[in-house]
Amino acid sequence: MKLLVVGSVAFDAIETPFGKTDKILGGAATYISLASTILKVKSGIVSVVGGDFPQSDLDMFEERGINIEGIEVVKDGKTFFWSGKYHNDLNSRDTLVTEVNVLENFDPKIPDSMQDSEILVLGNLHPGVQLSVLEKMTSRPKLVILDTMNFWMDTAWDLLVKIIGKTDVITINDEEARQLSGEYSLVKAAKKIHKMGPRFVIIKKGEHGALLFHDDMIFAIPALPLEEVYDPTGAGDTFAGGFAAYLAKKEDFSFETMKSALIVGSAMASFTVEKFGTQKLQEVAEGEMIARIKNFKELTTFEVEV
Amino acid sequence: MKLLVVGSVAFDAIETPFGKTDKILGGAATYISLASTILKVKSGIVSVVGGDFPQSDLDMFEERGINIEGIEVVKDGKTFFWSGKYHNDLNSRDTLVTEVNVLENFDPKIPDSMQDSEILVLGNLHPGVQLSVLEKMTSRPKLVILDTMNFWMDTAWDLLVKIIGKTDVITINDEEARQLSGEYSLVKAAKKIHKMGPRFVIIKKGEHGALLFHDDMIFAIPALPLEEVYDPTGAGDTFAGGFAAYLAKKEDFSFETMKSALIVGSAMASFTVEKFGTQKLQEVAEGEMIARIKNFKELTTFEVEV
Repeated sequence: MKLLVVGSVAFDAIETPFGKTDKILGGAATYISLASTILKVKSGIVSVVGGDFPQSDLDMFEERGINIEGIEVVKDGKTFFWSGKYHNDLNSRDTLVTEVNVLENFDPKIPDSMQDSEILVLGNLHPGVQLSVLEKMTSRPKLVILDTMNFWMDTAWDLLVKIIGKTDVITINDEEARQLSGEYSLVKAAKKIHKMGPRFVIIKKGEHGALLFHDDMIFAIPALPLEEVYDPTGAGDTFAGGFAAYLAKKEDFSFETMKSALIVGSAMASFTVEKFGTQKLQEVAEGEMIARIKNFKELTTFEVEV
Repeated sequence: MKLLVVGSVAFDAIETPFGKTDKILGGAATYISLASTILKVKSGIVSVVGGDFPQSDLDMFEERGINIEGIEVVKDGKTFFWSGKYHNDLNSRDTLVTEVNVLENFDPKIPDSMQDSEILVLGNLHPGVQLSVLEKMTSRPKLVILDTMNFWMDTAWDLLVKIIGKTDVITINDEEARQLSGEYSLVKAAKKIHKMGPRFVIIKKGEHGALLFHDDMIFAIPALPLEEVYDPTGAGDTFAGGFAAYLAKKEDFSFETMKSALIVGSAMASFTVEKFGTQKLQEVAEGEMIARIKNFKELTTFEVEV
């Protein structure tokens, strides 16, 4: 199966306790698509960049087999730019700069070559833009995966509820799940979010792992404990990309396959945070990924006989 | 094997968003021993209570097979009393009242009938008292499990380091592990704590599960997601009790058995939080516990083939 990935392709400038970067490649669609290439799953990006976006990055996408026909280049515009500084615990950060630039008037165009994508991954964007993508598909994809954030709950609630209602899988962090549902218990929160539309609710908890809810079933995983986390930027998007790519590869959307996909997404995210930006994700070979999934298995497997 | 449990036997008055209690039975040693009775493991408590402590609670301990010869009753003294109010998220609380009472001059006495205990569980107490217990044992127990808290890091550092140095297993929460080690990464924190003495380091993360470290091996589990948590009081002590009791039952201290013990401890703790105080723990039958462990297995089991 093929992934259609909609989201930002951007510049990030990141500061963490371990160092800082100048403008480097970032954006939700970037991380999602790069993650999918590790599993050798075909994807195409729908996004917009400015004339300042390096041809070398576009070439890199193509070399990795990512369809970039849907990346519009606005010659006299500037690429979306975000700059942030992480606190010592890496669990919180301050945004220093947000320049929306060409993303302000983003009108997504889906290339004909990607209209037959079975899985649509809607990366974090204005929910109105996410809705317009779904409307522009000539037929509904078999699976729609949505990522969003608290900012849209505060500023575009009605449109957000509308796109959530058209979604099969939502990925959201624990605080956002609580805000979206008004429930503190994540079990209760997931039940309310189910009722808003998505059959599958994934709650991301960063260093504490992730939860997958479907009907009355729950699957829970810890995160791989890491000695060093250099840069958490893109971890959630990488997770979504690995998750979606595994489903595409297996061509199956059962709860059992979703569970495995959660592991794959987490393993991929654990790579992303080990270096700045997309660096580690661009280096990872499939064998390394398989070894990390094996680590996950060892980390969590037990037998009990009382 | 037999457990010797040292810790508070106390009164708690608890307020949570779901209700409040008058003075009810509490204390670290209470939860630890009650948890062990569910696995039908023999234990004895070393503690001190006042003349106000109900005979009915002492009878309850005895009926459940707990040796209470080591519980000193100070007729003209008052039992340790703690009162606290949990915030809406149940992850934080304010202490309203702490009356140390008879615990102030606690001089633990180990009954001859418990000198042959193979496992010593040192519940959270002043590290000086914990040390004195170890010195009063005629021979060192095969396994010493220590629980402690940040309060002793602030007020009795040298004694705390000394008792940690004599310990095989330490259980500690994530914030305390960071404070004790000066490391933010829990992997690094565990390595430093290993060097202080304990061969096994358990980091408790409440609703986020727990981690077990031994040499270069790590085992991680999520917590069982619960729809309602009524009262977190005693969850950590119940965890320690279930953990220790499983080791006693299996008569084995290998990493593999410790992993299983972590699951048993977590399953038991998930019962404790479902009702106020020790109520649920007193009701749980072995079969219910086995069913919950099965839930844990379902919650965390996966297969991935990339």
